[in-house]
Amino acid sequence: MIRLTLNQAHELAESILLHNGFSPAHAAAVTATVVAGERDGCASHGLYRVIGCVNSLKAGKVAAAAEPQVIDQAPSIVRVDARGGFSQLAFQAGLPVLEAKARSNGIAALAINHCVHFSALWVEIEQLTEAGLVALACNPSHAWVAPAGGSQPVFGTNPIAFGWPRVGQPPFVFDFATSAIARGDIELHRRAGKSIPDGWGVDADGQPSTDPNEVLDRGAMLTFGGHKGSALAAMVELIAGPLIGDLTSAESLAYDAGSKSSPYHGELIIALDPQRFLGLGAEAHLARAEAVFEGIQGQGARLPSQRRFDARARSLEEGVQIPEALYNDLKALLVSSQS
Amino acid sequence: MIRLTLNQAHELAESILLHNGFSPAHAAAVTATVVAGERDGCASHGLYRVIGCVNSLKAGKVAAAAEPQVIDQAPSIVRVDARGGFSQLAFQAGLPVLEAKARSNGIAALAINHCVHFSALWVEIEQLTEAGLVALACNPSHAWVAPAGGSQPVFGTNPIAFGWPRVGQPPFVFDFATSAIARGDIELHRRAGKSIPDGWGVDADGQPSTDPNEVLDRGAMLTFGGHKGSALAAMVELIAGPLIGDLTSAESLAYDAGSKSSPYHGELIIALDPQRFLGLGAEAHLARAEAVFEGIQGQGARLPSQRRFDARARSLEEGVQIPEALYNDLKALLVSSQS
Repeated sequence: MIRLTLNQAHELAESILLHNGFSPAHAAAVTATVVAGERDGCASHGLYRVIGCVNSLKAGKVAAAAEPQVIDQAPSIVRVDARGGFSQLAFQAGLPVLEAKARSNGIAALAINHCVHFSALWVEIEQLTEAGLVALACNPSHAWVAPAGGSQPVFGTNPIAFGWPRVGQPPFVFDFATSAIARGDIELHRRAGKSIPDGWGVDADGQPSTDPNEVLDRGAMLTFGGHKGSALAAMVELIAGPLIGDLTSAESLAYDAGSKSSPYHGELIIALDPQRFLGLGAEAHLARAEAVFEGIQGQGARLPSQRRFDARARSLEEGVQIPEALYNDLKALLVSSQS
Repeated sequence: MIRLTLNQAHELAESILLHNGFSPAHAAAVTATVVAGERDGCASHGLYRVIGCVNSLKAGKVAAAAEPQVIDQAPSIVRVDARGGFSQLAFQAGLPVLEAKARSNGIAALAINHCVHFSALWVEIEQLTEAGLVALACNPSHAWVAPAGGSQPVFGTNPIAFGWPRVGQPPFVFDFATSAIARGDIELHRRAGKSIPDGWGVDADGQPSTDPNEVLDRGAMLTFGGHKGSALAAMVELIAGPLIGDLTSAESLAYDAGSKSSPYHGELIIALDPQRFLGLGAEAHLARAEAVFEGIQGQGARLPSQRRFDARARSLEEGVQIPEALYNDLKALLVSSQS
């Protein structure tokens, strides 16, 4: 393993993105999220994603210098057209408008359109909780997941994330796929020649299957939580797809046409301002929310992001460690010719 | 079984509520929801609830003639103080303001406070989809449900409901508890002396239990979907509790003080206007949503409320059937003395 300070990790990611042709604004925005992932122990959204960014650019699947266009859609809606760039810069462009609208109106929505998307939603959620706002975010992905009772993919892994600001504490944040498991986990089982647990997928007849080939190639992944998880996955398809004028997971997969790039679609973020909901009573009511967290932690149960915040505290002290092979692959992207 | 036309069911419920002292406005609002429940084959939210309404009134747990107070909280937030009355009339009072705010601003929230709550959320969701709006609703209940990894109740059954309007079709609507199962189902198993399935509850040590006594009296119910369902239950506690200045499930249970009345708390409803999100493109984008439903139904899977809409179609033709014992219990409430 190679140990890097967070500054070194930041410089490494940003220099690779710049060297390979991303604009300074995109390089900075993407770097912030992949370093945050690595810092928080989420290697799946960490530095290794930089390789995917460069590959997406070489494949012509992402715009390297797209300038997001901010559209004041309605008093409580801001839209950002990412114009084929990564979602991160579009989110940054929309964030101040979303914040201002939530503060003046109480609740507001940010719709990001036409973005290439691989970011973890918690990175964005935390920027809203830092501003004292409650936030919800979701997006479709690629149609890999069957509805409850079905056998053919309709939904993406369709994550839902939520954040609640806390005073003097890390926020309450969750961020999970509505699929039972990440697609990558099933792919790892296939590579290792291992069967998968019950509940992850079905075969082409809709029967439970523990064969990763069957699930990935002919059947479908399943949602978490049976028909309830399936209903939530449908909600995400609708509100982060047609409602914001962007692609569903099936449409995004069709657009990908087998290139295996990061999905191209939209994202919906909703922000709610406790100060506007509660007025003068805000402080007292938010203090009551702390009793919910105490009720969870006081009996030894974990808050959703606790492991991530623990990893963050360690990384801030000790930096991060990445496999030497990954480090070498990343360094190689600094000497290769520009795309 | 006794067969009633929907008009007869309506007259029966309304006359009982009026005879027992509810104001005409409350009697009408409650009647509409319990008849809708009976009509849609949801007996658990049907006519039998009228008995609970009268009992709650006799126990002094609900205000029979409370006039909801509508508060224009912020440009995109309307609050309704139910003043201790049933939630239904408060929702009716807030609905036109919520609609107007959603239409002018794109997204808006209705916070109902200080209501006695037993209504199914889909009844309210459908009033928003009928107006062409997308809607989300949730509320806490009584603390009966443990967080993932815990053994002691923190959350209520905390339902989440969602609706999406469709042209020429019933809306896409789901409405489910974030608990694995309704508390009533566990109580039915206890009465029948039967064990409950795995996944419904834990004992006082947090170990899986199939003993309904252990789960109801010493341990706790579980959420659906493991740690993901638990995270959603926490979200409902927060956004339909402290965020709107109202009770958490633990606080609502403490307030109940063993009277076993309908929970007293708040409710949050969010409405989104597709026309404001999409502008001129609305029709084309909403047509793309239909492909999601076709993808689900085309492979033989069911949409969440399909069974309910089928029951509705039957009831509109044939009326509803209720057990004779329930019918007699209801008729008896017409001759008993007023509370």
